[in-house]
Amino acid sequence: MGDELTLGQKLDTNGKWIAERLVDRGIVPVEHVTVPDDMDATVAALRRLASGVDLIVSSGGLGPTADDLTRHAVAMAGDDTLIEDAGARDQIERYFQERGREMPTLNLVQALRPSRARSLRNDHGTAPGICAKIGGCDVYCLPGPPREMTPMFLTYVAPSLRTDSARSIAIRTLHCFGIGESDIAARLGGMMDRARSPLVGTTASGGVVSVRIRYEGNFPESDAQQLVDESARRASQACSPFVFGSGEQSLPSVVLDSLRRHGQTLAVAESCTGGMLGEMITGVPGSSDSFIGGWITYSNEMKMRELGVIPVLISTHGAVSRDVATSMAAGALFESGADHALAITGIAGPGGGTEQKPVGTVWVALVSKPPSTSRTERAQAAQTLMVDARQFRMGNDRQSIREWSSRAALMMLWMRLAGVAVTPLLRQMPD
Amino acid sequence: MGDELTLGQKLDTNGKWIAERLVDRGIVPVEHVTVPDDMDATVAALRRLASGVDLIVSSGGLGPTADDLTRHAVAMAGDDTLIEDAGARDQIERYFQERGREMPTLNLVQALRPSRARSLRNDHGTAPGICAKIGGCDVYCLPGPPREMTPMFLTYVAPSLRTDSARSIAIRTLHCFGIGESDIAARLGGMMDRARSPLVGTTASGGVVSVRIRYEGNFPESDAQQLVDESARRASQACSPFVFGSGEQSLPSVVLDSLRRHGQTLAVAESCTGGMLGEMITGVPGSSDSFIGGWITYSNEMKMRELGVIPVLISTHGAVSRDVATSMAAGALFESGADHALAITGIAGPGGGTEQKPVGTVWVALVSKPPSTSRTERAQAAQTLMVDARQFRMGNDRQSIREWSSRAALMMLWMRLAGVAVTPLLRQMPD
Repeated sequence: MGDELTLGQKLDTNGKWIAERLVDRGIVPVEHVTVPDDMDATVAALRRLASGVDLIVSSGGLGPTADDLTRHAVAMAGDDTLIEDAGARDQIERYFQERGREMPTLNLVQALRPSRARSLRNDHGTAPGICAKIGGCDVYCLPGPPREMTPMFLTYVAPSLRTDSARSIAIRTLHCFGIGESDIAARLGGMMDRARSPLVGTTASGGVVSVRIRYEGNFPESDAQQLVDESARRASQACSPFVFGSGEQSLPSVVLDSLRRHGQTLAVAESCTGGMLGEMITGVPGSSDSFIGGWITYSNEMKMRELGVIPVLISTHGAVSRDVATSMAAGALFESGADHALAITGIAGPGGGTEQKPVGTVWVALVSKPPSTSRTERAQAAQTLMVDARQFRMGNDRQSIREWSSRAALMMLWMRLAGVAVTPLLRQMPD
Repeated sequence: MGDELTLGQKLDTNGKWIAERLVDRGIVPVEHVTVPDDMDATVAALRRLASGVDLIVSSGGLGPTADDLTRHAVAMAGDDTLIEDAGARDQIERYFQERGREMPTLNLVQALRPSRARSLRNDHGTAPGICAKIGGCDVYCLPGPPREMTPMFLTYVAPSLRTDSARSIAIRTLHCFGIGESDIAARLGGMMDRARSPLVGTTASGGVVSVRIRYEGNFPESDAQQLVDESARRASQACSPFVFGSGEQSLPSVVLDSLRRHGQTLAVAESCTGGMLGEMITGVPGSSDSFIGGWITYSNEMKMRELGVIPVLISTHGAVSRDVATSMAAGALFESGADHALAITGIAGPGGGTEQKPVGTVWVALVSKPPSTSRTERAQAAQTLMVDARQFRMGNDRQSIREWSSRAALMMLWMRLAGVAVTPLLRQMPD
C-alpha cells in the first residue's frame, strides 16, 4: 500500500518476504496488488480480493499521518466502524513513555481498529496491526517498515494461519557462488523438469544462485522431508564445489562458522569495496569471535602507510594489480596478527577505467599463515605464506561490482577453509 | 507476471522501474498487479485493468517455455487469435544465427502475436514485445529480464505513449534524518491535508523520513513546477534543521558534496558498524575526492594498536563509551591526516548488552580540525580540535542499529559542515 510504491519511488520488498513465508507454510499466493494512498482504490482492492480468496495480508498505511488509510479502508470494506482499542492505546503510550518522549497527539489514531477486528501488538514501533474479516476472508494488516512488519508476522500472524493439515510441504534451499544460473540448470538437468516432484527451481541474486527444492502433496510429513533431503543431496553433488550453504546460511555465516571450527581469525583490507566486506562479515551476530577488523585503504597513501604497500608496486603495476592486492593482504595479516587476510582492490566505476583495466576489473587476494607450524614459527615464516590472488571482470554497475567482489573474496576463503584444492571460481559476473 | 514473483522467490524490480519512467512522463500508475503463471488469472487481470485504465504495461511471460503465457493471455483478453509475425520470426532466427547456434524449435512460439497487435523489436534477446489493444486500453507486453525490458521500453514504448498534454505533474522530495515521522507530520501540519494541492505525504525508511510533494492537474507545466517548489520551500523550513537533501540525494552524497565544496577530507573508525559507514560513503561515485579511508577496529586490540586508544580508557569506561569513541576518532584523524574523522562504537546485539549499556547503546564521535588555521598549525593544535560525541539508544535489531548509527554519524558531520550550531539530533531511533 502506498504512493511511494505505485509511483515507483520504493521497491516492494515486503510483498516478496510475506509471499515466501506463506509458501513455506503451504499457502500459495495468487496475486500481489499495490494500490496508491487513495481510499476508493484501497477499499475496491480489498473488496475485490476478499470476494475471491481466503486470506489477505497487507503491509503499510498504518502510520499516524493523513496519508495512512489502511485502518479506515479495512473498516469501510468490511462495513464496519472504527473504535479505539484500549490495549493498543496503552501500548502506544508506553512506547513513548519508555523512551522519555511525549506522545504526539497524531499517534492516537494508531490505536483505532474496526469494531469487529482485533489489534496485533507491535513490539518494535507504534503502529499496531489489525486482524479483521471482510466477508469470509481473513485480513491481516501489518505496518510497512520491515523491522516492525516481519516480527509481527512471525509472532502474531503465522501461528494463527489456517493451513490444510492433510497436505505436507517440505522445502530445502542450497546456495551456490562462483557459477552462473544456466550452468547450474545444466548440471541439475532433468531434476528441473516441471512435471517432477519435488519441484526444483533456481533463482539468482547478487551472484548467489539458489536451488530451491519443494515438495507439496499428500505424503506424510516424514516421507516428504526424506524426499527433499534426498533431492537436496543429489543437487548438492551436481553443483559441487560451488555449494557453500543451505537454508538461512549466507556466505559470511558459513565462513565465520568455519573459522570458529578451525579456531582461526580473519582481517580484511578493502579499497574499492570501501568497507562492504567488513560490513557483510560483521552483519553476522558473534562475528567478533573470528573477525579482528580491517582497513579501508581507499587512498593510495593509506595503502602504503597503513599496510606497508611499497610505493614502487603502485607506480609500476597500478593500485589495481596482483602485487598490490597481495601486498595489502600480507600487510593486513601482519598488522592484525590474523590467520587469514582478504584484500580487494578494483575499479568500481563509473570513472577510472582504462582499456587495459576497464571498469569491473578487480583483484582479490587471500593470504594465510601456513596451517601446520606453531604460532611463533608462522609469524616469522613470511616466505611460506599461502597466497591466492585472482583477477575478476565484473560488468559495469558500481554496486554489483562491489557486492560480487566482496562475495568472491568470502568464497575464496570458504574454499580454502573447506580444503577445495582446485578453485575454478567463475571470473566473470554472469547475466 | 510469474510464479517466481507471486511465490516471493524474486523481487519485482521491473514494476518500480516502469512506474518511475511513467511518472517522469506525466502518467500516474494507479495499480501494480502481479499474477502467477496461470492463464485464467492473467486473462482476468488484463480484462479487469483494461476496463478501468488507459494503459497497461506488463513484463514477463514472453519466454519460449510452457509457463510463458502472456502472448496467449493478451490474445484471449482481447478476443483475438495468435498469428506468426514474419518480422519477429526473422529476427529470432537471425539472433541465433549471429551467435552460431541452432534455433531450438521451442523459440518459434516467440514469433506469435495477436492478429490485430504489432510486435516490438527486442535488440537484446529473443522475446519480441507486443503492443495490443484490449477494448480502448493500450497494452504493452515487455520481456521479464531487465536488460531486455528497459531498452525496449525506452526505444519502442516511451516515444509512442499518449500523454495528456493538458495535465501536468510535478514532484519534489525532501529527505530528513534525526527526527521521527510523526514529528515531521506535526511540523507540516495542514500541508498534509489530503484535500490540498499539491499533495504532501511522508515515508520513513532506515531512519530517513522523506516528504513527498506532488502536484497533478491542469496548470501549465511551469506553474506546476513553481507551485511544488514553493511548497517544498515551506516544507523545508518547517522541517529544518533536519532536511539534509532532496530528490536523488542521500546522506552520503550530500556529505561528500559538502566536503568537496569545503575542500576537506574524511576518515572513519568503525567498531560495531564493521565497515558499513565506509561502504555507504564509497557507494557514491567519486567519493575518493574526499574520502581517505578508515579502520574497522572490531577488536579492542585493533582500537589500541591502530588508533592509539589508551588501554586504561577501555578498562575504565568500556569500549562503548564517550572516551573511546572520541579517542578512536582522534586517532583516525591524526593517522589519516583528514580534516574530519567519524568514529562509531556500540552494542549491536543480540549479545553483549548489560543493564547500564543495553543492546542498542551506541556512541558516535566526530572530531574535526579547527577550520580557520593553516594546515601546519592545525596538525599541531590537538587541544583545539572540535569534538562532538553523542550517545544513542536504538531499538534491538542488529541491522537497524548499524544502519541508524552510520546515518547518525553522517548527519552529525553534515550538520557541522552546514554550520548548524545547535544539533538537536534525535537520540533514539523513532518508529
